[in-house]
Amino acid sequence: MRNMPDRPAVLVREVGPRDGLQNSRAIMPTEAKLHWIAAMAGAGLREIDVASFVPPTAMPQMADAAEVVRAVRQRHPSVRAVALAPNLRGAQNAAAAGAQTLVIPVSASEAHSRSNVRRSRVEQVHAFRGIVEWARSLGEAAPRIEAGISTAFGCSLQGMVPEEEVVALAAELAEAGADVVALADTLGYATPAQVRRLVRAVRGVVGAERFGNLHLHDTMGTGLANVLAALEEGVRGFDAALGGLGGCPFAPGSVGNINTEDLVYLLESEGFDTGVDLAALIAAREPLRAGLPGEPLSGRVAAAGIPRTFQPARRAA
Amino acid sequence: MRNMPDRPAVLVREVGPRDGLQNSRAIMPTEAKLHWIAAMAGAGLREIDVASFVPPTAMPQMADAAEVVRAVRQRHPSVRAVALAPNLRGAQNAAAAGAQTLVIPVSASEAHSRSNVRRSRVEQVHAFRGIVEWARSLGEAAPRIEAGISTAFGCSLQGMVPEEEVVALAAELAEAGADVVALADTLGYATPAQVRRLVRAVRGVVGAERFGNLHLHDTMGTGLANVLAALEEGVRGFDAALGGLGGCPFAPGSVGNINTEDLVYLLESEGFDTGVDLAALIAAREPLRAGLPGEPLSGRVAAAGIPRTFQPARRAA
Repeated sequence: MRNMPDRPAVLVREVGPRDGLQNSRAIMPTEAKLHWIAAMAGAGLREIDVASFVPPTAMPQMADAAEVVRAVRQRHPSVRAVALAPNLRGAQNAAAAGAQTLVIPVSASEAHSRSNVRRSRVEQVHAFRGIVEWARSLGEAAPRIEAGISTAFGCSLQGMVPEEEVVALAAELAEAGADVVALADTLGYATPAQVRRLVRAVRGVVGAERFGNLHLHDTMGTGLANVLAALEEGVRGFDAALGGLGGCPFAPGSVGNINTEDLVYLLESEGFDTGVDLAALIAAREPLRAGLPGEPLSGRVAAAGIPRTFQPARRAA
Repeated sequence: MRNMPDRPAVLVREVGPRDGLQNSRAIMPTEAKLHWIAAMAGAGLREIDVASFVPPTAMPQMADAAEVVRAVRQRHPSVRAVALAPNLRGAQNAAAAGAQTLVIPVSASEAHSRSNVRRSRVEQVHAFRGIVEWARSLGEAAPRIEAGISTAFGCSLQGMVPEEEVVALAAELAEAGADVVALADTLGYATPAQVRRLVRAVRGVVGAERFGNLHLHDTMGTGLANVLAALEEGVRGFDAALGGLGGCPFAPGSVGNINTEDLVYLLESEGFDTGVDLAALIAAREPLRAGLPGEPLSGRVAAAGIPRTFQPARRAA
C-alpha cells in the first residue's frame, strides 16, 4: 500500500455484526459471523462492534455473543472488539469474553428508554454509574466504557427530543465517568443543521477527546449529508454497517445504519484516510450474503462499482 | 397554507418526465405522463422538465414531446415547462410547442459528447451559438436558453474531466449568450469538495445570476451530501426526479437522479422553503407507478413515512 500521510484519519467503526444482526430476520450462524468479520478485518476495519450482551430470550441472534467476542480477540489482534451491554451483568459478561470497548445505551427519549432497556432514563443513568464503578475496580484490565446516547436526534415514540436534554444527559454521563460519550441517531431523523448544533454543544460539554463516533442511520436518505456536516464540525469517527444493515428492534420505524461502503467512498473522496480498502470491503458483502441469505442489502457504490474517478488515500503499490 | 416568510427559497425542478422517462424500460402513455405531471404540479412544483425533443427513432419514450408540452402549458399555467433539445431543430420544435426553457446539453467530456449528441464538443458549442442566435431572432417570444454542461464532474467513458476545461466551457457558453449555464453530474461521480470547487469557479465566470440548477445523480449515494455542499456555496436550485428515476442512456453506468421527495425533505429540514407539499409529492408516486408499472423507484422518505419531527416551511392552516 502507498500511503498519503498528509490525509487526516477518520475512524470507521463497523457495527453490522451487532446493530445489523440484532435486527435481521434470520439468525446468522456463529461461524458465518466470524467469516464475515474476518473479511471486514482483512479490508482494514480496525474497530468492529461484534455482539450485544442481552438475554438470548430477548435477542436470539446474539446468543453466541461471548463466543464471537472470544474468537475475534483470538483471530484478529489488529481489531478492537466492541460490544453493547445494556446493564452491569451484560457488561461483566462482555468484559469476561474480552470485549475492549463496551457501549452502554442510554436513551435521550424517555419512551425509548422504557422500550429499549425497560428502565426510565434516570434509572439507566444510575445503572451506568454502577457499570463505571465496576469497570474502575478492574484497574488496568478495564474495558473502555462508552455511553451511547440513543434517540439523540428524535424518537418515533416520543417525537422531538429537546436538544438541551441531550446536552444535559451527555454532561451527566461524562461526569459519571464515561470514557467516551457518543451520539446515536437511532431513528435516522437527524438533519445536517441539527447535527452541527448538537455535535457542537455536546463536544463543548464532554470535551473533544471524549466525544465518540457519530452513530447514524439512513432512514430519510440524509445519512451521508449528516456525515458531511459532522466532518465540518470536526467529527473524525463514524459508525456504519456493511450493506446498510440495522435498525433498533425497540424503535418502530427504525431502518438501516449508514452504509459502510458508501461512507468509506465518501470519506476517501473527501480526502480522509480510513485505512480501508474499498474493493475488499465491497467483497466482504459476499460472506454477509452467504451467512444471511435473503436479507436485503443497500449500497450504491457496491451496485454501481467503484468509479474510475475514485482517488483513495492508499493504493496498491 | 401558512407560510414562514423568513425562510429562503430553493427551486426544485422536477426532471422525471424527461430525464427519468428517457431511461425507463417501458414507454409511458401520454395521458399517464400528464396525469403524473398534474399530481406533481398540484404538490407545488413550479418548474418541470417534461420532454426531450429528439428523433422518436432514437428515443421512442419522447415521441409525444410536443403534445406533452402543449398540454402542460394549457393545463398548468403555474408551471414553467422545460424541455431538452440537443440541436436547433429540436429547439425550434420545443419552442413551437410552447416550452419556456430549453436545456441544450453540451458535454464537458469529449467522449460523452460524441456518444450523446454525435458531435464533438467544439461542434456542439457551435450548434449552441446557432440556437442562441435563432432564439434572439424571436424577440420577446424567445424561450430561455439554458446550457446544460453534462459530465461536468466526471465521465464513465473518459474518466476524470479536468475542472479547468469545465470552467472554460462554462465561460464560452456564457459568452455565447446562454441565459443560464448549469452543471450536470450525469454519472453521479461528484463529491462534496469537488462540488464546492467547481460551483465556486463556474459561478465566478458566469455570474451568480446566470448560474442554473445543479443537476445531480445519486449513483454513489453522495447526492444529498453534494446538495448540502452546494447549498453552503449559495446554490438555490436543484434538479431531481420523483422516485429517483433517470440516468443517461448514452453514459454507461449512469443511474437515477437524486430523489425529489428526499431532496424536498432535506431542504425543508434545513430551513429552506421549496413551496412543495411533501405528503402530496409522495402521493404523486402513485400515478408514476401506474403509468410505468414495474419500474423500480427509490425514495427513503416515501418508504419510511414523513417523521413526526419534520418541520416544513409551510403547513396546512
